[in-house]
Order: sequence, then structure tokens, then C-alpha cells
Amino acid sequence: MKKTTLLLIILACSHAIWAQVQNDNLVQYVKPIIGTERMGHTFPGATVPFGSVQLSPETDTIPYEVNGKYVADVYKYCAGYQYDDKTIVGFAHTHYNGTGHSDLGDFLIMPTVGKLQLNPGTAANPSSGFRSRFSHTTEVAEADYYKVKLEDYNITAELTSTTRVGFHQYTFPKTDSAHIILDLMYNIYNYPGKDVWTYVRVLNDSTVVGYRQTRGWARNRTVYFAMKFSQPFVEYGYKSFSTNEPYAGFWRRFNLTKNFPLMEGHDLRAYFNFSTKLDNKIKIKFALSPVSMDGAMENMQAEVPGWNFQSVKKEGQLAWQKELSKIKIQTISDSDKVNFYTAMYHAFINPTIYMDIDGKYKGIDQKIHIAKGFTNYTTFSLWDTHRALHPLFTIIQPKRDNDMVQSMLAHFAESPFQMLPVWSSYANENWCMTGYHAVSVIADAVIKGINTFDAKKALAACITTADNPIYDNISAYRKYGFIPDENSENSVSTTLEYAYDDWCIAQLAKKVGDKKHYNEFIKRSQNYKNVYDPSIGYMRPKNKEGVFRKNFDPLETSGEGFIEGNAWNYSLYVPHDPVGMIQMEGGDKPFIERLDKLFTTYLPDKYFAHTEDITRDGLIGNYVHGNEPSHHIAYLYNWTSQPWKTQQTVRMILKSQYHNGADGLGGNDDTGQMSAWYIFSALGFYPVAPGSDQYALGSPLVKKADLKLENGKHLIIETKNQSEQNVYVSKVELNGKLLAQPFIKQSDITNGGKLVFWMTNKH
Amino acid sequence: MKKTTLLLIILACSHAIWAQVQNDNLVQYVKPIIGTERMGHTFPGATVPFGSVQLSPETDTIPYEVNGKYVADVYKYCAGYQYDDKTIVGFAHTHYNGTGHSDLGDFLIMPTVGKLQLNPGTAANPSSGFRSRFSHTTEVAEADYYKVKLEDYNITAELTSTTRVGFHQYTFPKTDSAHIILDLMYNIYNYPGKDVWTYVRVLNDSTVVGYRQTRGWARNRTVYFAMKFSQPFVEYGYKSFSTNEPYAGFWRRFNLTKNFPLMEGHDLRAYFNFSTKLDNKIKIKFALSPVSMDGAMENMQAEVPGWNFQSVKKEGQLAWQKELSKIKIQTISDSDKVNFYTAMYHAFINPTIYMDIDGKYKGIDQKIHIAKGFTNYTTFSLWDTHRALHPLFTIIQPKRDNDMVQSMLAHFAESPFQMLPVWSSYANENWCMTGYHAVSVIADAVIKGINTFDAKKALAACITTADNPIYDNISAYRKYGFIPDENSENSVSTTLEYAYDDWCIAQLAKKVGDKKHYNEFIKRSQNYKNVYDPSIGYMRPKNKEGVFRKNFDPLETSGEGFIEGNAWNYSLYVPHDPVGMIQMEGGDKPFIERLDKLFTTYLPDKYFAHTEDITRDGLIGNYVHGNEPSHHIAYLYNWTSQPWKTQQTVRMILKSQYHNGADGLGGNDDTGQMSAWYIFSALGFYPVAPGSDQYALGSPLVKKADLKLENGKHLIIETKNQSEQNVYVSKVELNGKLLAQPFIKQSDITNGGKLVFWMTNKH
Repeated sequence: MKKTTLLLIILACSHAIWAQVQNDNLVQYVKPIIGTERMGHTFPGATVPFGSVQLSPETDTIPYEVNGKYVADVYKYCAGYQYDDKTIVGFAHTHYNGTGHSDLGDFLIMPTVGKLQLNPGTAANPSSGFRSRFSHTTEVAEADYYKVKLEDYNITAELTSTTRVGFHQYTFPKTDSAHIILDLMYNIYNYPGKDVWTYVRVLNDSTVVGYRQTRGWARNRTVYFAMKFSQPFVEYGYKSFSTNEPYAGFWRRFNLTKNFPLMEGHDLRAYFNFSTKLDNKIKIKFALSPVSMDGAMENMQAEVPGWNFQSVKKEGQLAWQKELSKIKIQTISDSDKVNFYTAMYHAFINPTIYMDIDGKYKGIDQKIHIAKGFTNYTTFSLWDTHRALHPLFTIIQPKRDNDMVQSMLAHFAESPFQMLPVWSSYANENWCMTGYHAVSVIADAVIKGINTFDAKKALAACITTADNPIYDNISAYRKYGFIPDENSENSVSTTLEYAYDDWCIAQLAKKVGDKKHYNEFIKRSQNYKNVYDPSIGYMRPKNKEGVFRKNFDPLETSGEGFIEGNAWNYSLYVPHDPVGMIQMEGGDKPFIERLDKLFTTYLPDKYFAHTEDITRDGLIGNYVHGNEPSHHIAYLYNWTSQPWKTQQTVRMILKSQYHNGADGLGGNDDTGQMSAWYIFSALGFYPVAPGSDQYALGSPLVKKADLKLENGKHLIIETKNQSEQNVYVSKVELNGKLLAQPFIKQSDITNGGKLVFWMTNKH
Repeated sequence: MKKTTLLLIILACSHAIWAQVQNDNLVQYVKPIIGTERMGHTFPGATVPFGSVQLSPETDTIPYEVNGKYVADVYKYCAGYQYDDKTIVGFAHTHYNGTGHSDLGDFLIMPTVGKLQLNPGTAANPSSGFRSRFSHTTEVAEADYYKVKLEDYNITAELTSTTRVGFHQYTFPKTDSAHIILDLMYNIYNYPGKDVWTYVRVLNDSTVVGYRQTRGWARNRTVYFAMKFSQPFVEYGYKSFSTNEPYAGFWRRFNLTKNFPLMEGHDLRAYFNFSTKLDNKIKIKFALSPVSMDGAMENMQAEVPGWNFQSVKKEGQLAWQKELSKIKIQTISDSDKVNFYTAMYHAFINPTIYMDIDGKYKGIDQKIHIAKGFTNYTTFSLWDTHRALHPLFTIIQPKRDNDMVQSMLAHFAESPFQMLPVWSSYANENWCMTGYHAVSVIADAVIKGINTFDAKKALAACITTADNPIYDNISAYRKYGFIPDENSENSVSTTLEYAYDDWCIAQLAKKVGDKKHYNEFIKRSQNYKNVYDPSIGYMRPKNKEGVFRKNFDPLETSGEGFIEGNAWNYSLYVPHDPVGMIQMEGGDKPFIERLDKLFTTYLPDKYFAHTEDITRDGLIGNYVHGNEPSHHIAYLYNWTSQPWKTQQTVRMILKSQYHNGADGLGGNDDTGQMSAWYIFSALGFYPVAPGSDQYALGSPLVKKADLKLENGKHLIIETKNQSEQNVYVSKVELNGKLLAQPFIKQSDITNGGKLVFWMTNKH
């Protein structure tokens, strides 16, 4: 018996009570379908943890013409799939998880039989094109596995994936006219003109390589692919739907559209024809690369050398089991477990790995780089994820979080803008939302000691970013101490976010002993006070002359100086200085009243109409859980004399905003931020101000949890007297020691041990 | 004294009579302006021999709208410049020499002063845009040097170049509003939609990098650049003229159009503003790369590290002097010398070097390769150049010709089509014209013994090409022995060209001892007989049933089964078997009559209207010197009993089709083929059938010539009694030995020695 095995057994014994959980298949609790209806913007398809490929069905993103202009439901179809739709147009390889803006949807594949149709047709008349009707009764959506019957063609579609390879398995009826359509003009955010260039090269009767360049949210994005079929096609071809062909010329001597090994241009749909026997399975391995066609081919060879669909699926689900097992829980009900592990699943989709198997990736400078000593990630929705997702990663994915920061620092080094990422994706910066919150993630990683990168160099990148004159009114912010109303439609929220970000930089500077910058940025972090109007008690836009805006409505989200929030919510957004904020806003009692009112005031419809990204159910009074600026608010009671209201409110939100159904998310998952909020809150604590090592305690939903840390230690969270009614916490013990305050530190978690909450139904 | 120097002196002494020529500045005879008026399609700007950069003024290629459709003079402006135009819109970096189809015109630079205008305006109203009036009186066009006064701005523009770098020098008046416009939407073949993508990154106040992707004649072409200014710009920006912007989104928070370091999209024009003193010279180094922005920067550093315009110009002209010196001539008149050295100049522009200084280039597979052991070339207009340009290279540029073949073989290896190049350019195949004439160039190189490449591998590439089922009716050609009329609009000319190409492959097979393929292809080479209709005495389209086309007009160029020629001319196109052809067409006397008639019959206007690429002056009877299928015809008399008619006709063509003026070329120079015809014919011989080592003798125009060969030997061509009237050759001696036939062999040339023609005014 090896020593390591012995150790394992000892560890297993020491957690004997967890035997049942140890053996539990956690993948069974993952329901990718959650959030696919309405606002969740999640996708139901196959992906492995942080995988480059997200292979998922598309129900409708096809633009349609209205009065000569093209319209596309670019918001509704952020993830390509809406649960209420009745047809599937195919299966594409790239998706964001839960975003409020859209892009991707690369390389749509659709199997059909019968007459070859190369347009998708309409949802109203599916037979007019290649799309197919489907039903949720034949649909299976698991972690890294998706299955559905395409009813129009009697084809069973199955999908699984590895990090860089989508694996399709289509079970055909017997026919001489089986087709695999490769739609190269399909896009999420599917406007005419998005296709910049498409290149497809047929290498032999079962192998195809190529690339696609698009302009969309990512302005200049190229994805390369390699595609192999498990059986040879008998013929192939394409059709171009482009209306702008400046030169056709001598190509006229060829029939380019059939069996011609180079297919190029704009807006192409290719097809591959087969003859199939009954239950003939045509499998497709479809590898992606951010670098080259050769890179895609090597990714395929490395990750899926064979053709065994079941074994690829099994490996993918084992990978999920491994990640999910990082937190094992016992809950009051199975539905909580489903919410929890689906949240874990959603938290582990984005950011995604963005490099070839050999470490090569394309930088934002459009050059090829090699990630040395780290895994390169992309898809940083930092305005969302700096709040709870990255802090969660510091606990249960510290290696990945460290790699993500290194990816951000590489981005900085390669950036034409000398900026850390804002919302970056596929070697592009789309500038979505506000702030320079990468500094929060970086400071958090350093403060929590998970960094292998050079903290001083990282500080320099943070400062260059925070001082960058080309970015969103930074010059004015530095000049006036706030962003003047006339400069920006988000002058107040951006000022508040900059103030928080500056505080993060100050913490980082302090940590590395840079007093000069600590002093500079700790001063800047107080700028939040410059946009508070004590005469009305709210944050409020102010012009260069220092005059607050007239005719101001603190309930209005639109046009009042804020983004995704109103003055009500943003007046509570000083995560780094709750004490100062409470004092500024009148002290303990008035502040408690303010919070109470937030959760109870009914928001009239005229305001709700301007509240983005959520359903009506996503509102709790005037509190908008679906929008991130509010995510810390429930925990602010901890800084008042009534922390029990945090406990009560958190449990209420956990129950009201997260369900097991397809409509189970009240707002966009926002690449895992909504899910990270759930995970933290279900465990009983939350990072109100990333960049500090402090977590505010709430009210755990779990009965018990075991956090398996990368340092080999475990944090056990136990509750006593846990029930649906017992949402209040009478006392908390950390390793047998009573906590005097409702806060714990990162080291309390990472040193391992036991955190016990005594639950009660009275506060 | 070193031994080599001694040797040099001895050589110099042995050529004592050439002392004057030895010291002659041959660059003075190069007049790049020749061919810039009407049909020549040459450009007047700066380039070094076979340079990647051709930096030249553009007079007008701007498309204009007619009834809602865009029209551009894509044929007239193949080289961007027409002598008769009155305005210049700027200076672009890439041009073909003398083509009949257009593309390129990358990276137009225009200096202006005063109000910034970002549209070019019209020729009719130059002040409506940034273009400027100019006059030929201030224009200087030399090899690798161009100068002109831009009258609207009082700016003197000067251009020179190295292989990969364009060097601009603009002398400004004193002004606070000097502009350098970088027009990234300018194109030759300038249709809306040609711009696929443009990326410009400003690195600092004087350095810019980027790339441009276009779809045109080359379908998918990307050229990268690096640009340095000799003085910092004070501000910069751009305007997009694109009407299709699918996503602008969060970029709205920035003023992208001014001082923003990334400029991206479609149809952009950028500008850089300066403050200038009187006579302030703003210099620009503009480097190109087929591979990357870094490659462009390295090319710049390697080729033009400093800022000395004069020294770059001097080096460029020295490079030309070296190439021109490979043939030194004495002539009856200086105008002949101008024609000759301008022909040499034009012959040494295309193909162009297509790789970075480190050997990297982009292949037709869109991947980056390294040219190992050869210089990679592109721009192969092989339908034209296999006839005389490449044969000329086998004599005076054998190393380059060998490299060019290696470039073609690399193209083959990288081709998605498994084809040698047809008309290839910038990692693209545009399929222009007919045949697979790369096999002629390859066979010629091997037969003439200049190859370092593996001849057997080359043969395999030739055979794969000649048997390629996807290419222009090869399958039908192999099945029927000709291309049936119903299959192709060029069925006869293509059949004839395939037959000749097949003969080349046979010669190559024979040379490497491959009897099987020799037999196969020598048989295919006789296919020319299958499209000859003895009942009318002309080549004629025939259908699958073997029935010749009814209502056939042998004078008509359009729609009668031929390309760039009619049955009259193409019935003389069997370069590889003149003996068989003459026999087939009636024998000696009838054939002489046929040839006589060709040169004397007036071609009625209705036929001339369909004759492409030439002016009326380009016609000699029904003989079209401006179109290549006729180029060997004057030499066919050598196979009859009246070779003196070859002598007479050749001298007549030399005098009538080539002049010193801007309109000095009667047809497109066709990347040097027209010029190569001139050089050969002026020297007294011509390669009727490349792939054989035989040259037909004509009537030299020179008084004397010294061909300096790469093997160190010299061929001296002397004439006795040379004069304008003495166009007939009474006898020819090679190294003192009388020639019995009007033919010499490659070895007669490359072994060096003396070829003496006795001239007379009587035949």
C-alpha cells in the first residue's frame, strides 16, 4: 500500500459522516436548463469546466426585416436558446453564460434529411427551412451532455465536449439524402454585416478546416476550426448569401459551389451529404482554436483522438464531478441542492480557457503569444464578476483565479490602450459597463495571498489603467474628484465605482509597501462623497460648477446618471467604506430605515420599464437582485445595530430569486456572478468589499458544507437547528470560539477548520 | 593587389572597346513613364528590382455612382496612374506592372495643407477633396525615384524604395495645418465591399502599425504595415466611410475618431496632423509584410534603419544599374537604348519578392511558412510570362528563375487545389486566363539546366496539375482529346494551350527518364490536331459529338472559342510543333501566304471592337502584338523557306510597337512579357517553344550587346553593317562558325562566346 493511499484513507475516515456525500454523484444536481427561460440567459448545451467550447442548441437568433431594416432579438437570445421556443436551428460551439449582451454562436451545425434546404426558415413555418421542431419531452440537458430529438427529420442529436472540442453524435434514419449543414453565417447578435470573412478548406472526404472572422461585440474576432466526420461525405458544397461580391471574375470557370475544396467569402452555408443506414450514427469532432487551423487540428488530436462518444461524455462529467466536489453540502431539500450545484456549474463556465493545447493564444494586439507558466483565460465580465465570482475563486479555485489575473496582466501588456480588461473576450475589448474592476480582482488575489504573479508589476498595471486619459472620463474624474454630469450619462455610478476601484488599488499599494500610491488612491477612494447630495440624501449627478442636477428622480434608472440601477440602490454602493457611508447618510437608525424601505417600497411600473435585465419577479421592493450593484446590499445590515435583517433578507433572496425551473433565475446569470452570490450566501458569508480579506456573515441555507481547499485543508460549515423557518443566527463559532462580530476573514477559511452557525426562528 | 581585382582588370581589358559602355549610367535610359498612357498599364513610381513595394502616384481609381450602382474604371487604372489625368489622389505602395486586370493599390498616402479633407474629391473639381492638381513639367520619373509638385498644396513629393519599404519625402510650406492622410479604403479595382477589414494601431507619436484585408482579384489578401514619421504628429484620427456598422455599442463612451490608439473597421481614412516650417521635410518610412506587423517593423529596421532619403534612392538606383548591366548594348539611336533599358526595367519588376527579411511568407493555405533555401516570389502572370519573360530569366536571371520555380512548387505544396499557380498573387490564386503554364516554366528551367530543385518532384507536381479534375475542363479534355465547345467559351484556345503544356511535361518527363509519362504527355501534346478543321483551314470549336460549330467567323475574337485572340491567330498557336502544324495547314507555300495575310489584312472595326487590351496602333493587319498568343508568330517564317520574313517582321514590330513616349507600349506590358519580347527580339533571337532549348533567330536591333551571365561568361552579340534599313541577315556566325539554320541553343548562349550577324538591306 502506498503512503498516499494510506493518507487518503485516513482523511476519508476523519470525514466519516460524509461517506454518503463522498459517494454522491453531484452531476445529477446540475440542471443546465435552469435560467434558459426569459432573463437567465444561460444555455442548456454541453461544456466542461471553463471549457473553450460551449456546444449548445440555438432556437432562434435569425434577424428579420422590418420596413427594410434588419431586426434581431439580440438581447433575448444572448445564449442562443430560449426555453419557450418550439424549433431548433442547429447546434453552435460558443456561448456566453448568462450575459446581458450577446455575441458568439460560432459554427452552427444542423443535421437534416430529405430535400437540402440552406435557409433556416421561420419559427412560424419551420418547414420553410432547415430548422426542426423539438419537444422538451425528448430533451436531456446534463453537465456536458445534451440530447434532443429533431422531430422534422427523426434524427436524435447528442452533444458532449472537451475543453476545445465539440463532439456531435447524430442518429439518422435510413436515407440517401442525409445532410450535415455547417452554417457559417449563423451568429448570436446576428446582424447582416457581422460576417467579416469565412474560409473553409476541405482536406479530404471527412476533414474540413477553416476560420471565421466576425465583427460584433468583439470587434475583430477570428475563430479557427478543424472538423472531422466519422464517415466520409459523398459530396459537399455551399451557398453564399452575400449580396456584395465585388469580384467573381475568373472563378466563373469553376463550379465553386459544389465539391470545390476552398469555400470562401461572406455569409456562407456549407453542406455535406451522406447516405445513411437505419440508426446510422454520424459523429463529428469539431475543434476550435484562437490561433490557427493547425492549432485546431492539434487540439482535436490531443483531446479527442478517437470516436467514442460515451467516453468523452464520461470524462466531461467526471471533470464536473471533480469541480463540484470542491464544495459538498447537505441541505434541507433536494431542490436546494439543485440550485446550489447548478450555481456551481454556472460559476465554472466563464471565464473560459483561451489558448491552444500548446499554450498559444491570440492577444488583443492581434499577435500570437504563448502563455508561459499560466493558463490563459478570456471572457472577463468584470463589472459583474469582481463582486463575488472572483472572490469565490480565491477560495475554491485559487490556482485558476491566479491564472485569470495573469491573463489580465498579459492583456494589459498586449493592449493597444494600456488598459487592464474591462469586458474582454476573444482578444477583444468591448468596453461593456463601467469602472476598471480588474484592479479589484487583482488586489483581492494579492490581499488573499493567492498570487504567484509580481504584485508590484500588477500594481503598476492597475495605476496605469486608473490614470489612463483615453478611458471613460478618467481625466475629468481626476480633475474634479467626480465625473461631471455633462460628461457622461453614468456620471454618478462611474464615480462611485472608480472610488471603490481606487480603494482596491490603495490596498494593493499598501500590501506591497508603496506608500505614495497608497496615499494617492486612498484619497481618491473617498470621492464617493463628492456625488452625495445631503439635501436629498441620495447620490446625485453634479455638474462642473458643483451644482446638482435639477428635477432629479431617485427612483428612475434611466438617464439620471447611473447604469443598471437608480439613486436608491447606488446610494448604498460604497462597498469599501460602509462605516463612512452610514455616517454620511445619517447614522445607524436612518440607515436601517433606508435599507428596510429599499426592500419594501413597490417600484411603480413606469420605473420598472427602465430596469434592465430582470423580470418583475426579480424585484424585491425597489431592490433589484438581477442587477449587480445591489448584490452587497443585504449584507449592509451587518454594519448596523440589526444584523439579523441581513440574515432574514439573504434567506428571503435565496428562496425567492433562485428556483429549479427553466425560469429559475430572476435575472441574467452574468457569467456566474448571480450564481456566485447564491453559493456564498448559501454557505453563510459574502465578500462585500473584494480587496479586503473580510466576509460578512449572513444566514446559511445549507445544513452542512465541506469546502475542499487546494491547500489540502477543509472548511466545514455546520448549522445547528437548521430549517426553513430558522433563518436567524443566534451565535457563530469558529473552531469552537465564539465570533464577536458577524465577519470572518479569508484566513479563517483557508486555514481550514469548522464554522458552526446556531440557527433560530427568532431574532 | 588581390587576384580577383587583377582578373577584373584583365576582363575589362579584353573588352576594351566596351569601355564607354562599362562606365555608362544605364539607369538614365530607364523611362518609367513609358506605357503609362492608355494601354501599357505600367506605373511611373519607385521600385527596386523585383521589389515587394511599388510606390507610385494614383491619378484616379475612385468608383462613382451611376443610377445607384458603383462604377470604377477597373481596366483603365490597372496601374493606378494614367498619363492624361490632371490630378493625383496620393501615393500607394503596391502595383502590378502592365496587367490587364487590376488589384492592389495598398496604403495610399497623401500630404495636404489647410482644411482637413478626408474625401478625395473629383477630377472635375479637385478642390472638392484632398486630391491635388499636378503637371508633367514638375514630374520626374526614374528607376526607384519619383518626384512631383502637388500644386494645390505647394508640396513637393518625392518617393523612393527598398525591397520592402516605401520611403516618402514631402517638402511642406510653413503651416500649422499640415496633414498626412493615410487612406485605407483606397484600392485599385476600387469597388465598395472590397475592404474586408482594416486595423491600425498607433504605437507612439511617430509610429503606426496595422494591416488591411481585401477581397478583390486576390480573394483573401492581407497586407501588414509599419509606418514611421520623421517628426512626431501633434494629433491624429480617422473617419469611417462604412455604411454597415453592426455594432458600435460601448465604444460610444470614447471619441474613437480622434487620438484613440486603435482604429478599426471598414473603409477608413486616417490622418496625422503636423506643424511645419518652411521647406520642412516630413519623411515617412512605410514597410510592408505579407506576414505580420512585427514582420513589417523588422523589414523596416533591416532595410532602412536611418532617414537619409538620398542614400536610399542611390542604393535603389545602384541595384537597378547592377541588373541593367547584365546586358550592355550599343544601338543605332539613343531612343532604342531607352526602349531597351526601359524594357529591362519593366521585365525586372514582376514577379515580386514575397517574404519578410527573415524568410517568412503567407502561403495560399493562409498559413505562415519559411522559404528555406530560396527567395519566395509572387505575382505570376503565367499565361503571359511563360512565353518570353521566364526564358529570358533562364539566361540573365537563372538564380531568380530557379527561385521562382521553387516558389511555384511551394505554392503547389500549399495549395488547397493541388495545383501549380495559374495567376497567383499575394497568397491567392485568381485563375486568370487559361492553361497550366507553370509547367512550361518548370520544364524550361530543367531543360536549360538551371534548376537546383528536384526535377522528379517537380514533374509530379506538373502531372497532378495537368490531371486535376477540378480545373478548367481537364476531365473533358482528357476524355475527348479536346475541350468540347459546349463546355467552355474558350474551348479551342484552352485545348491548344493544354497541348503545348502537355508537350512541356513530356520534355520534363523525358529529361528525368520517366518514359511512361513522356509517352502519355507527348501523345496529349498532339491534341492540337483535334480542333483543326481542314475544311476551312482554321482551328474551330467542336462539340462532344465531334461536329464543328456552325456559323463560325475566324476573324472574331469574342465568343468563338478563343481567349484574347481569334481563329486566325490561334491557328498559328502550336509552338511545340511548327513542323506538324505547317504540314497540317497545307505545307510551306500556303503557310507562308497565311502568315503574310495575317500581317497585312486590315481588321474591320467590328472585330477590333472585341480585341482586348490594345490600341488600334497595336494591330499589324490582323496580328495583335499586344496579346500574347501571337508573340511567337513572327518567328514562324523560320520554319518555312522564307526566314527573311521573320527578320523583316520582327524589325517592323520592334519599331512600330515600342516607343519612348508615355504611350510607348501598344498593349499591356503584362508583367514584363511585352518587354521580354522586345529584349529577345532586339538581341536577335526568341524562344518560340519554352521547354525546348531552342531559340529562333530574327534580326537584331542592337549594334552590339554583351550578355553578362551568372556563370561569369559573356555572350557578345555583334552586327556587321547594322542600320535601320539593313534588317535582313545574310549570315550568322557563332564563335566564327557559320550557322546552317536560323536557330541557336541555350548552351550556345550560356557557354559564352560571340554571335555575329551580317546585316543587309536585301533578302
